[in-house]
Amino acid sequence: MPTTDFQPADAAFAERVRASFERQSAMATLGASLARVEPGEVEVQLPYAAHLTQQHGFLHGGIVGAALDSACGYAGSTLMPADVGVLSIEYKINFVAPARGQRFRMVGTVVKPGRTITVVEGRAYAIDDGREKLVATMSTTLMAIAGRDDIKH
Amino acid sequence: MPTTDFQPADAAFAERVRASFERQSAMATLGASLARVEPGEVEVQLPYAAHLTQQHGFLHGGIVGAALDSACGYAGSTLMPADVGVLSIEYKINFVAPARGQRFRMVGTVVKPGRTITVVEGRAYAIDDGREKLVATMSTTLMAIAGRDDIKH
Amino acid sequence: MPTTDFQPADAAFAERVRASFERQSAMATLGASLARVEPGEVEVQLPYAAHLTQQHGFLHGGIVGAALDSACGYAGSTLMPADVGVLSIEYKINFVAPARGQRFRMVGTVVKPGRTITVVEGRAYAIDDGREKLVATMSTTLMAIAGRDDIKH
Amino acid sequence: MPTTDFQPADAAFAERVRASFERQSAMATLGASLARVEPGEVEVQLPYAAHLTQQHGFLHGGIVGAALDSACGYAGSTLMPADVGVLSIEYKINFVAPARGQRFRMVGTVVKPGRTITVVEGRAYAIDDGREKLVATMSTTLMAIAGRDDIKH
Repeated sequence: MPTTDFQPADAAFAERVRASFERQSAMATLGASLARVEPGEVEVQLPYAAHLTQQHGFLHGGIVGAALDSACGYAGSTLMPADVGVLSIEYKINFVAPARGQRFRMVGTVVKPGRTITVVEGRAYAIDDGREKLVATMSTTLMAIAGRDDIKH
Repeated sequence: MPTTDFQPADAAFAERVRASFERQSAMATLGASLARVEPGEVEVQLPYAAHLTQQHGFLHGGIVGAALDSACGYAGSTLMPADVGVLSIEYKINFVAPARGQRFRMVGTVVKPGRTITVVEGRAYAIDDGREKLVATMSTTLMAIAGRDDIKH
Repeated sequence: MPTTDFQPADAAFAERVRASFERQSAMATLGASLARVEPGEVEVQLPYAAHLTQQHGFLHGGIVGAALDSACGYAGSTLMPADVGVLSIEYKINFVAPARGQRFRMVGTVVKPGRTITVVEGRAYAIDDGREKLVATMSTTLMAIAGRDDIKH
Repeated sequence: MPTTDFQPADAAFAERVRASFERQSAMATLGASLARVEPGEVEVQLPYAAHLTQQHGFLHGGIVGAALDSACGYAGSTLMPADVGVLSIEYKINFVAPARGQRFRMVGTVVKPGRTITVVEGRAYAIDDGREKLVATMSTTLMAIAGRDDIKH
């Protein structure tokens, strides 16, 4: 059951998003996978990995940002027509707790879809010994780009 | 010759920053290195790498953000006393051009140092066929944390 | 019935917040009033006023920001001890629709309270001919300051 | 002598910006005036005014944001063609010192102009007993809108 009531413009949105995600080698390097692709909401998951840490052994804040950016961008992408690409214009991330845990969930949720500009909010959670904790929040501005092959999906 | 006129509180600031950077395995995964460590300014360099790209083969925006976050955080760290750690509270990144290039330079520069809160601005440049181009700007808020071993450097 | 489950540290939080709001002459100039003060959530209301518009006759975006900043700051303040002041370190606002309407509601909701740093999210709504529309979203970082009279409430 | 090397697309950019500023009643309420309009850079000035303060008698942070937003928006506007309007999509403001002073200068400077998206940075200064102090920094995303009368200037 979808958690938002947005209507996708492209019936094949999930396949399109999954195919694009597969082409992001940065996400493979992060060990990230797409856990959920719904109209207006996407969840990326990530196990802890020693090659992604900062100096105290927690997940690097910039890596949290990269995975959460991906979740937010694809959340916007789910609501786009098939021939429209999406660019992140900007994002802001607030770190509210150290990213300490065995697994991480990054959830991007569209707040306001638009023909040109879409605003998405993100939440990153750490799962540490079975307990989930909010570690970061994000707000992202996406721009829809039509008719340019180098920005398609 | 330093590019800012800030005075470091710790004469060994550069060694301290370099030692901390070495412990960030995420930066090794990115292939990032510290090109310059001055009072209030730090430059991180990064070669293009196929394992860090988005779906069009450019450097992933979130990876640009992770490296630039590191440059900004360490820029603030250069002005801290030896026993004080630094946390990124938040950052905002604007993407102004695709991160297309063979090499990347991320420069963090302190705008306003403070006992508790320090504000830093960042610039990410792509070097593409010998020409340098601005690809992203960042503004970051850092918090100084004294007396906690888990946040020291 | 409160809309969050945060516990206030100060039983008189609502009186304290209302007294501080009364001392903000900028809010009087905006015609803003406190509609709701709950633990972790504050709502500011504002009628349309011709002296607060931009060049097309809508509420000026910066004015939307000022009122929403106030709602977010006081939302954080509701959870602080009586002798602790609150500073806005930074905020980011996304404008998602023109601020066209007869009345405006600004709601600030604490996402993550903290001893030093508190993160709050805001939503600004325009009520236009009886229909409510989201016009802006905000994320704010607050810092708690104890023991300084010039930052108390 | 202009402080940036941007070329305006419209020779009458300064008149256009000044005429639009005059139509912003919010700026009149703030007592703000346009001190400088150059290609890619605009300065707004503001005297201290008791009706714009927060609870400690300093200029309200949200008012600083409103005036700085205006400086940034018009900085972008100087580089636009005559028939193109400008919307603030979002801004982020960092408060680095209390806005204490007799006068305030808000300077918006274009970092990256673009056909659709323009990124601008802002600095707010307080002049207190003849000394100038940085009180806030801003980064703003603007979108150019052609062919819509309700968003023209």
